[in-house]
Amino acid sequence: MYAFTSPFQQPSGSPIRELFKYLGEPGMISFAGGYPASDLFDVEGLRLAAQRAYDPAVQCLQYGPTDGLPALKREIVALMERRGATCEADELMATTGSQQGLDLLLRVLVEPGDVVLTEEPAYPATLQAFRLQRAKIVTVPIDAHGIQVEKLASLLESGACAKPKLLYTVPTFANPTGATLSAERRRALLALAVKYRFVVVEDDPYGDLRFAGAPLRSLLAEAEHIDGARDWVVHFASLSKIVAPGLRVGWMVGPREIVRRCVIAKQTVDLCSSPWTQAVAAEYLAAGALESHLPKITAAYGVKCRELCSALREELGDAIEFAQPEGGMFVWARLPGINASDLLEQAIAQKVIFVPGKAFFANAADSASLRLSFAAPDAEAIREGVRRMKRAYEAVVTAGRPS
Amino acid sequence: MYAFTSPFQQPSGSPIRELFKYLGEPGMISFAGGYPASDLFDVEGLRLAAQRAYDPAVQCLQYGPTDGLPALKREIVALMERRGATCEADELMATTGSQQGLDLLLRVLVEPGDVVLTEEPAYPATLQAFRLQRAKIVTVPIDAHGIQVEKLASLLESGACAKPKLLYTVPTFANPTGATLSAERRRALLALAVKYRFVVVEDDPYGDLRFAGAPLRSLLAEAEHIDGARDWVVHFASLSKIVAPGLRVGWMVGPREIVRRCVIAKQTVDLCSSPWTQAVAAEYLAAGALESHLPKITAAYGVKCRELCSALREELGDAIEFAQPEGGMFVWARLPGINASDLLEQAIAQKVIFVPGKAFFANAADSASLRLSFAAPDAEAIREGVRRMKRAYEAVVTAGRPS
Repeated sequence: MYAFTSPFQQPSGSPIRELFKYLGEPGMISFAGGYPASDLFDVEGLRLAAQRAYDPAVQCLQYGPTDGLPALKREIVALMERRGATCEADELMATTGSQQGLDLLLRVLVEPGDVVLTEEPAYPATLQAFRLQRAKIVTVPIDAHGIQVEKLASLLESGACAKPKLLYTVPTFANPTGATLSAERRRALLALAVKYRFVVVEDDPYGDLRFAGAPLRSLLAEAEHIDGARDWVVHFASLSKIVAPGLRVGWMVGPREIVRRCVIAKQTVDLCSSPWTQAVAAEYLAAGALESHLPKITAAYGVKCRELCSALREELGDAIEFAQPEGGMFVWARLPGINASDLLEQAIAQKVIFVPGKAFFANAADSASLRLSFAAPDAEAIREGVRRMKRAYEAVVTAGRPS
Repeated sequence: MYAFTSPFQQPSGSPIRELFKYLGEPGMISFAGGYPASDLFDVEGLRLAAQRAYDPAVQCLQYGPTDGLPALKREIVALMERRGATCEADELMATTGSQQGLDLLLRVLVEPGDVVLTEEPAYPATLQAFRLQRAKIVTVPIDAHGIQVEKLASLLESGACAKPKLLYTVPTFANPTGATLSAERRRALLALAVKYRFVVVEDDPYGDLRFAGAPLRSLLAEAEHIDGARDWVVHFASLSKIVAPGLRVGWMVGPREIVRRCVIAKQTVDLCSSPWTQAVAAEYLAAGALESHLPKITAAYGVKCRELCSALREELGDAIEFAQPEGGMFVWARLPGINASDLLEQAIAQKVIFVPGKAFFANAADSASLRLSFAAPDAEAIREGVRRMKRAYEAVVTAGRPS
């Protein structure tokens, strides 16, 4: 009846959100969500920040500037400085989560048919955003040390694909793989961006969630040490995973010319993100509450991650392969010879869910792969969830065995 | 250096936001903004709603459903019911202001090159949204009784333009004209939508701001009385003008198939609007605070509107033409023989600003037209502002006179 545009003729929702229907089932244990742990929110700190932000109320209630409340932008500049990257106010805009930044960037930079590069496996909403903009997606594989920059170099040198507009990566504690790009690869990636003139889109929602290993410079910070590289880095970050997603406060740092156009696009898209929650975020950051509360979150995630990894080793032993991450929210695993969609079916029966890896692939998927989030469940639920995973695994193996 | 997409190669920001730079000047009186009056916000009612919404805090702090918090959706369904329109939860989604709803709708419905119809003069951000989606804009003139439906009928019958995907209108207290579509025209417009199978996009941010005359059914409500018409109406509304823009709470009511696709698009665009401000809005509406506070806003706007209109008559007499609106925030005026951009230049020197009408035209503009918002200034500022307008007018006339 309606003539929808091509991406929406056969629309499919987020494969992860599809799993949410099981969350309401009594006793279900979920490794599926990308949600941070609700019980680790700084409820009191945010309540106080909200009280301060409402005085004067007008800054919360009236329209705000499209690029973000000045008070919030000042705090973000200071936060980026503490993270080792300098930026001016006009290289920065606030967005409704970093997801909106990606959408705006694609709209100003990507014509239908343009080549965009992404690490693979990749965050599904990024793949969806590429499809919505009708980009041609070309993938570069990721391993335990992040996106394989040598393979990217070969691809670019071979001319096998048209000149890419940009490359998307989560270099620190990637979603879904948990992998972190090594320092050498960071420098090599930036050198390629300068040489081949494509934008490196660094998505960094998890960088602060480090519970093991030594910190690395973000691509944005590293770019300050490589001639011309800052011209080719657009950096996304967010308070969603380190404070609370409900603020919907993310931001973009990038070259002025790009940021200016994204601000103009945002005028048309939603005028401004909520100045109310921006004001709360500004007060929260100004009070130093991020620095005082964040260690509680990372410590808890460290415990959960170790719990999950040791349970997986104990229960599944050689049947499972994974690399233990040094931060973030995710463990990426493979069960060789097993189809993760079959496993999910049995797992649901056992009252545990996870995300089959195929959701994270643009093209041919590794069907044996799966993503487990350790952020939300507590240690006991993690142990029990893995025991249920083992029973599901055994059911799949039994069903697959010739009788 | 960067290869931007065609709408962003020569980007131009909002012509209204361009005027904001003058707002900071001491003593400036502004008729330019589309902002509601800050001093009429229900600061205490919203503070109380925010306190209730934060208990439990998790609903404010965690991610929310893409289509909106269930509690908010229930309140909106009830509000729409009070406004005479019935809708089910899956015909409704919450958005970041109604502006986001329009952007989402265009992305699911409009291919580059598709014809979109709009009343003219029209809200500039709508024209920008059409351009961003690369639609072909065809205009239908508006008069004191709203969009000229007979001209639309002729246009459609003549086949002079390709089949339109949709028609955009603000039928009640339009921006910029303040005009309200008559009941006859409402029915005729809906009949045309059914006959020619295009979506009528009813943007209704101001409908509740009636301070004179008798209420009319919205197009959405009217459509329930015309066979098949509900299939062709997408209705946008918002709390921005009747509660506070800082909430960024708008919504869309439309056919399920369309709403479902917009929800999927929103997953990619920003995952969800802030559940925190949605929860505040839900509490505010549930408490009946809208009904108790809104009469204060409409009464104040009525006073301001009458003040502006009588001052314009007194100071400018026959030199100015305008129709006094029955609600909303805007007076649309013409000063025959005067170029409103020249007038603005002189007005800025006199410390008063307004928006020249050309910002509201897709193509050839009526250069003598201008938009005056009476929402923000108080009665004294309105009187003084119009006196300054008169001096600016005289300066333009004097400058234009052969010496």
